[in-house]
Amino acid sequence: MTRIAYLGPPGTFTEQAARQWSEGLAGAGAETIDAPTVPAAIAALREGRVDVAVVPFENSVEGSVPATLQALLDGGVDGVRIGAEVHVQVQFSLLTRPGTSLEDLRERATLATHPHAAAQTRNWVDRSLPRAKVVPESSTARAAQAVSEGLYDAAIAAPGAAQAYGLVPVAEHIADRPGAVTRFVVLRVGAPVPAPTGSDCTTLVTWIWANRPGALLALLDQFAVRGIDLSRLESRPTGEGLGEYCFWIDANAHLDEPRMQEALVGLRRTCRDVRFLGSYPRADGRLVLVPAHARDQTYVEAREWVQRLTT
Amino acid sequence: MTRIAYLGPPGTFTEQAARQWSEGLAGAGAETIDAPTVPAAIAALREGRVDVAVVPFENSVEGSVPATLQALLDGGVDGVRIGAEVHVQVQFSLLTRPGTSLEDLRERATLATHPHAAAQTRNWVDRSLPRAKVVPESSTARAAQAVSEGLYDAAIAAPGAAQAYGLVPVAEHIADRPGAVTRFVVLRVGAPVPAPTGSDCTTLVTWIWANRPGALLALLDQFAVRGIDLSRLESRPTGEGLGEYCFWIDANAHLDEPRMQEALVGLRRTCRDVRFLGSYPRADGRLVLVPAHARDQTYVEAREWVQRLTT
Amino acid sequence: MTRIAYLGPPGTFTEQAARQWSEGLAGAGAETIDAPTVPAAIAALREGRVDVAVVPFENSVEGSVPATLQALLDGGVDGVRIGAEVHVQVQFSLLTRPGTSLEDLRERATLATHPHAAAQTRNWVDRSLPRAKVVPESSTARAAQAVSEGLYDAAIAAPGAAQAYGLVPVAEHIADRPGAVTRFVVLRVGAPVPAPTGSDCTTLVTWIWANRPGALLALLDQFAVRGIDLSRLESRPTGEGLGEYCFWIDANAHLDEPRMQEALVGLRRTCRDVRFLGSYPRADGRLVLVPAHARDQTYVEAREWVQRLTT
Amino acid sequence: MTRIAYLGPPGTFTEQAARQWSEGLAGAGAETIDAPTVPAAIAALREGRVDVAVVPFENSVEGSVPATLQALLDGGVDGVRIGAEVHVQVQFSLLTRPGTSLEDLRERATLATHPHAAAQTRNWVDRSLPRAKVVPESSTARAAQAVSEGLYDAAIAAPGAAQAYGLVPVAEHIADRPGAVTRFVVLRVGAPVPAPTGSDCTTLVTWIWANRPGALLALLDQFAVRGIDLSRLESRPTGEGLGEYCFWIDANAHLDEPRMQEALVGLRRTCRDVRFLGSYPRADGRLVLVPAHARDQTYVEAREWVQRLTT
Repeated sequence: MTRIAYLGPPGTFTEQAARQWSEGLAGAGAETIDAPTVPAAIAALREGRVDVAVVPFENSVEGSVPATLQALLDGGVDGVRIGAEVHVQVQFSLLTRPGTSLEDLRERATLATHPHAAAQTRNWVDRSLPRAKVVPESSTARAAQAVSEGLYDAAIAAPGAAQAYGLVPVAEHIADRPGAVTRFVVLRVGAPVPAPTGSDCTTLVTWIWANRPGALLALLDQFAVRGIDLSRLESRPTGEGLGEYCFWIDANAHLDEPRMQEALVGLRRTCRDVRFLGSYPRADGRLVLVPAHARDQTYVEAREWVQRLTT
Repeated sequence: MTRIAYLGPPGTFTEQAARQWSEGLAGAGAETIDAPTVPAAIAALREGRVDVAVVPFENSVEGSVPATLQALLDGGVDGVRIGAEVHVQVQFSLLTRPGTSLEDLRERATLATHPHAAAQTRNWVDRSLPRAKVVPESSTARAAQAVSEGLYDAAIAAPGAAQAYGLVPVAEHIADRPGAVTRFVVLRVGAPVPAPTGSDCTTLVTWIWANRPGALLALLDQFAVRGIDLSRLESRPTGEGLGEYCFWIDANAHLDEPRMQEALVGLRRTCRDVRFLGSYPRADGRLVLVPAHARDQTYVEAREWVQRLTT
Repeated sequence: MTRIAYLGPPGTFTEQAARQWSEGLAGAGAETIDAPTVPAAIAALREGRVDVAVVPFENSVEGSVPATLQALLDGGVDGVRIGAEVHVQVQFSLLTRPGTSLEDLRERATLATHPHAAAQTRNWVDRSLPRAKVVPESSTARAAQAVSEGLYDAAIAAPGAAQAYGLVPVAEHIADRPGAVTRFVVLRVGAPVPAPTGSDCTTLVTWIWANRPGALLALLDQFAVRGIDLSRLESRPTGEGLGEYCFWIDANAHLDEPRMQEALVGLRRTCRDVRFLGSYPRADGRLVLVPAHARDQTYVEAREWVQRLTT
Repeated sequence: MTRIAYLGPPGTFTEQAARQWSEGLAGAGAETIDAPTVPAAIAALREGRVDVAVVPFENSVEGSVPATLQALLDGGVDGVRIGAEVHVQVQFSLLTRPGTSLEDLRERATLATHPHAAAQTRNWVDRSLPRAKVVPESSTARAAQAVSEGLYDAAIAAPGAAQAYGLVPVAEHIADRPGAVTRFVVLRVGAPVPAPTGSDCTTLVTWIWANRPGALLALLDQFAVRGIDLSRLESRPTGEGLGEYCFWIDANAHLDEPRMQEALVGLRRTCRDVRFLGSYPRADGRLVLVPAHARDQTYVEAREWVQRLTT
């Protein structure tokens, strides 16, 4: 039985991601446990109360999830690693207590939701319920729960929250931009890096020397010179002052590849700091094309040649 | 009389930024008007109801303010431009109604604040009021107002919110990380670009061709080859899918400099899209050092030489 | 009547190049005049005694012709420009006075030729006339002339030298590596730059700041960032000490293209010195592919956009 | 007794270089043997008739010595390596048979010399002996020998050639540009690479993929990304057609340094071919500054870090 902590409460997209991931597990099945915060989920992992933790990482509309990024950095060097990723299509429904219709909300209504969900449904709300007041809650599931408790008239939440809290959808697919995707990561502590699959991703965080012009160019060059494409580059403030950033990087390569190891050596040599957060299979299964000059076998042969020169 | 819309309600750091900026105005003084949202402040600007709008842009701990970035992009090509920036030191106080002491909050209390402020004071709250429940509100000032209305026991807010809502501070300087700074921008519509000062910043947004490896390197190179340093580079999702980003750039140069104009030509030629959001004096007044090869006079002489070759 | 000075004496490959080029002239035809040295040919040009000078520039086996490169640099800033190029297939014959056969040379023979020609026929001579002594002369034509004067037994020379000096070929196509090509340039003084043809070359010489690491990378980047390919890059000592070079560059672009003008501005700004030696049609007529971002029209539109921003 | 082959005949600058180098040898002293050509010197080395061969490599005025470059390439992959370099100040004298004065040469004279020496003394000859005829010979020493045989009136040669051939100097220091230096290399076969000294040079030849734009930039980047400066970069035609080059590189690093080994791996991976011709102490003894990120210890620590990640 695999024990999975996820960012709750029940009914969030994260629970959906946790279920989606656990369907791929063989054997004794999984038990999901909701955690109130990302740090709480990670704490459960560290303390051995669960085997994995599933947390949201980034959204195709809102960008990354700061709480998760921060919690991963707080993990320290012996910390948590990403062992898998899960993509979930984001759908929003407007949920009410049974008996309340969309029409009932026209004149005056309080709609609870998470601020990200509010941002992603703003146009729909302005158009459909222009007199409604949108109230922020800590999660869309908490918003749904609060509606079930009678605190608000309706919640903008994941479809799955209806069942979890005894609500009914009075409008579905209300996101302004259809096709939004949220990416979740599955965290472990002390587990081996999953074997390469040919469709892998490596997540890193790097701190460059801010006072050196061209430092970011040099950082990107560490990947380019070894034929590694990046699928994600995100700057985040380090908290040390305006203009001080670290960079979150997803590279299309695996730790076991020589090109990735050489790039890591290059980052370690030239950056203020670098953190390795895991190599794991891509959720989309897209094959990573490796240029001929950067393949494992090319490295092996080139190193043998240099070895012969030195002896 | 300069009319200034700012992201309200009164008592926010944005009001403080608006006052700070208006102190630099000569003449008839300024009138500040609070707007409920960033888009509302910008709408007031577009419709001529105010002369400038002051909105938060980025924070040294939390990063950029998505609502502002989005609103600036929604402005379209003939839209709003940044004419100035203001830096405000961020200080948080714990505010209560007169008569409530810190001791009164120990056992059980509701603390309202904006989620960003909650994040920046989490350690202090965990340590000082471990049993308190933190409730999200839409702004720190709204949180203070709600406390004055009796909805919560205390607010984590800007010091200025105490006076605005008749509250008193029971703890001050409670941010976990001292020295946080928020950067605000002063927006105008249809105003000329301020003249160069030798300490200027140009804000741009660029969309690169995501499917071209090396596109970001090429983007950065457009600046490097013309001796322009960047003080800020931030990736933001475009909303078109995971891995699709635009890049917000602050360059240490002014639109009137030939090196900046040539870089803009280069970006326009090579990027999917590029938006110019303004050149304006840096708030820190730090002199921008221009390499000899990139100075205005060097450009003038080099172009005259090429001109002579062609005739 | 176009007067053409060429590097003589008659019978050299340069005469062949001069004739090849003059065949393309309309009208009154051409008169060819042999000059003893490259500087002498250029002097005739400067003093108005001829209209053009044809001199060898580089050979696909031996590399560039130092005397020509030096003479072009000595021209100074108001000097000579390349207006056309000519490619000539290099063929060597072994020429003797009538009555002398190849067999007669087996036991003991003196073979006169230019050192470059000696280098290109060394294997053939070692195999066919292993006992012959090769003697250096100042040109292959001078070698042929010396044979006609009875000074040597045979000359390794251009096929055309046979007729010029009354000799006969006893062996033909004796170059060790078939397919060698020599490139000649047609020089003018004070003539306008030929109009772009879509298949053009621009010849430049640049001096970089030797004590700056990365200076050559930066030089190449001035072309790369504007989508200009180089077809030739040659380092030459400046004569100021070991490790001091200038770089001869052939760029696949024309002075009238905005991308080339911008690159020239960039070189002028960043290099110790730069010399423009001409834009002219490529001898091979190969169409130059210009990336979309570097086309003339792209530049025009990008500059109009920047112009609108500044007003 | 170390046996040294050098490019003769006696009296050349190469003999001077061979003596200069052998002065540094301890023990039984050296025996110098003149070879008629660079390939002959190398053949003596391969066949074990000598221990080292000393040949000219490049001159600060004339550039590289094509015969040496070609001979080194012809050596094949198991071939000759450079084990040391020697710098010799180049001085030219005008040498005559005893009894002939400079005045005697004014009216009519034949001056024999090597074409490179002719080029380096052209202005002096034009000014001092304008009516003299300069005749090319295969070396300056051969020119001196020919004067001693009565074939010419005078020779432009190294000062040391006077003693070797019984001539006297009638003019000294006649080079147009004082301070010229020629660099010689000391070749060995099958000897170990000399140990690093902190002031080392590595000589390489690389063939890039000519049809790939940016291939040279990528080549240079292999060094830049590892903090290696180049002291020499020379393009040479490969003989396969106009525009086909190989690049001779002198890098300021030693084969035993991890940064150099990693760069060699990078070149081997990305170039059409690469040849290692030796790591050896710099003749000028200038200390090579290694950036902190490229030092041996930095590599060791960075690799240990990656090693820990993978286990």
